[in-house]
Amino acid sequence: MIESTVAPFSFEEVALATRNRGMPLEALRYDITPTGLHYLLVHFDIPYIEPADWRLRVGGNVDHPQTLTLSEVMALPARTETVTMECAGNGRARMSPRSFSQPWLLEAVGTAEWTGTSLRNVLDAAGVRDDSIEIVFTGADHGAQEDVEHDYARSLPLAETARDDVLLAWEMNGRPLEPQHGAPLRLLVPGWYGMTSVKWLTRLDAVTRPFDGYQQSRAYRFQRDDDDPGEPLSRMRVRALMIPPGFPDFPERRRTLAAGTTILRGRAWCGTAPVAKVEVGIDGVWHDAELRPGAGRYAWSEWQLTWEATPGEHVLSCRGTDADGCTQPDVAPWNVQGMANNLVQEVVVSVTG
Amino acid sequence: MIESTVAPFSFEEVALATRNRGMPLEALRYDITPTGLHYLLVHFDIPYIEPADWRLRVGGNVDHPQTLTLSEVMALPARTETVTMECAGNGRARMSPRSFSQPWLLEAVGTAEWTGTSLRNVLDAAGVRDDSIEIVFTGADHGAQEDVEHDYARSLPLAETARDDVLLAWEMNGRPLEPQHGAPLRLLVPGWYGMTSVKWLTRLDAVTRPFDGYQQSRAYRFQRDDDDPGEPLSRMRVRALMIPPGFPDFPERRRTLAAGTTILRGRAWCGTAPVAKVEVGIDGVWHDAELRPGAGRYAWSEWQLTWEATPGEHVLSCRGTDADGCTQPDVAPWNVQGMANNLVQEVVVSVTG
Repeated sequence: MIESTVAPFSFEEVALATRNRGMPLEALRYDITPTGLHYLLVHFDIPYIEPADWRLRVGGNVDHPQTLTLSEVMALPARTETVTMECAGNGRARMSPRSFSQPWLLEAVGTAEWTGTSLRNVLDAAGVRDDSIEIVFTGADHGAQEDVEHDYARSLPLAETARDDVLLAWEMNGRPLEPQHGAPLRLLVPGWYGMTSVKWLTRLDAVTRPFDGYQQSRAYRFQRDDDDPGEPLSRMRVRALMIPPGFPDFPERRRTLAAGTTILRGRAWCGTAPVAKVEVGIDGVWHDAELRPGAGRYAWSEWQLTWEATPGEHVLSCRGTDADGCTQPDVAPWNVQGMANNLVQEVVVSVTG
Repeated sequence: MIESTVAPFSFEEVALATRNRGMPLEALRYDITPTGLHYLLVHFDIPYIEPADWRLRVGGNVDHPQTLTLSEVMALPARTETVTMECAGNGRARMSPRSFSQPWLLEAVGTAEWTGTSLRNVLDAAGVRDDSIEIVFTGADHGAQEDVEHDYARSLPLAETARDDVLLAWEMNGRPLEPQHGAPLRLLVPGWYGMTSVKWLTRLDAVTRPFDGYQQSRAYRFQRDDDDPGEPLSRMRVRALMIPPGFPDFPERRRTLAAGTTILRGRAWCGTAPVAKVEVGIDGVWHDAELRPGAGRYAWSEWQLTWEATPGEHVLSCRGTDADGCTQPDVAPWNVQGMANNLVQEVVVSVTG
């Protein structure tokens, strides 16, 4: 087991893991993750916003600055997208050494039906000027990282903001956003890691120079070492996950399974290119799984493989390959911040005769 | 800070903290906890149940054994109760030494509006015989603890099962239960720690001898040492919690606050007796907070205290006292399993001038 070598954890890491929440892997069975099971990562505190008092300010390098109420945003043409979202830090706690942050193992993922209006409907009304290169998205969540006090903010290149499926979303799974998911309005950028989809939006600003806020210029970068400014993260790497078969014990969560025919199941997704293949490893031998396309380009695909489980201890694994030929690695792709670690999942199961 | 001395944690504890979820303390501002922010503790895997296939079997020492469909249960008279629920293990990670289990700090709590029918409507129809002493509640969640394989099951003394407010609940906050909260039907025992409110109910059985299942006879007991069989847990001890004021940094979550008038706010609850008093400690000096009754006997009460915050570092705390005169302790009430630790919360805040 890779995981059992990665310890110990600090009090502060456990405090983060208690606030934030992963999706228990048995929830991979749902096409749409029940709202309360969707992963959640909140940097600072969940802000409290009265929808009636809330305004979205659209400004910066635009011809017609706007101040919109929630009703005004919700009066724009609505669309719904089924989107799998993953935290950029998923897998951090499976790196060694790991950086001090939320200690994700595998569970920082979920799929939801998001309803909103295309971002470009709002940007078009504001008249983004031609010399703009990015839109900066600012949320109401306020705090400090490395002594830099700021409202959480991220930018997106102008080309991405023109996509029809990039939403200003007010509903998740058919209901108004719960506070922790960005109420009353959040950004939703299908295919990108979750840090991009800014929650609790308060401002959109067109800019003519690359945004250098903390969450853009310092956080969410692939750094080789502390002195390396690093490359920014963007789209999700390919990843397959498996529902651990059998039943667990508590608190260790070792798995036990009765011998016989077992259908191994899970999901796979990728932001950079469609998922092309999922393989399941049985004691180190790879088998192609059956793959069922997801509900849209950025929704996860379901996979399954029938396994004749024989008594004894077995190591199961799964790995995805995308249409560009990228396959999940069997060695963690290390970087300073512990980002985008799509190391293959392993599940050890004791099969009883 | 009490907490920072309690480390390190194992990989397995972090894996549990990632699956289970606390309520971020800023959510103490809501009378009703948004569903996705309610605490959650699942021993084994969340079972998958098709409501149409589900049946509730009522048997054991009864005159008229029953097999009920969900529609039949939902046709019984409905009532809604606003109930604060807390995990018996809340505070475990603030004990030293602590037992190996879910490493809760303070956040294992939430308040919801639960809708269902009084348990006794179902028991009366089954005709529980007079020599019965307990009802055993069995869930669909299956696993092993200490090599004892079992479906999660707990019992309740007959007197408690006769309470009108003990529910078989099918709705939480006005919507069908999400899977992780016990869909399609769960028990809800206001005032008791959460382990009592068995999720994913499949069976109710009247018994004439004390139930000796693992979760009753071994787990959830106040043990002095491993050889002590211990006393069983039942109702929640008094506890007050505070919304940490100011803003946090990430990932350390230290608090910063601007000097001036600050309203400190939080909630308090108790299962054994009503909350009679909440005090707020400012650098070790206790002040009586203003207390607003909750939405029913077993819903948390809101409290607040106005504080003139002066520059410098301050230690804030809060403690509840119940109508029986029990007050939260300033030393953790240790026991082997790390149960019911209602040690006073402390929040350190740096006030800037």
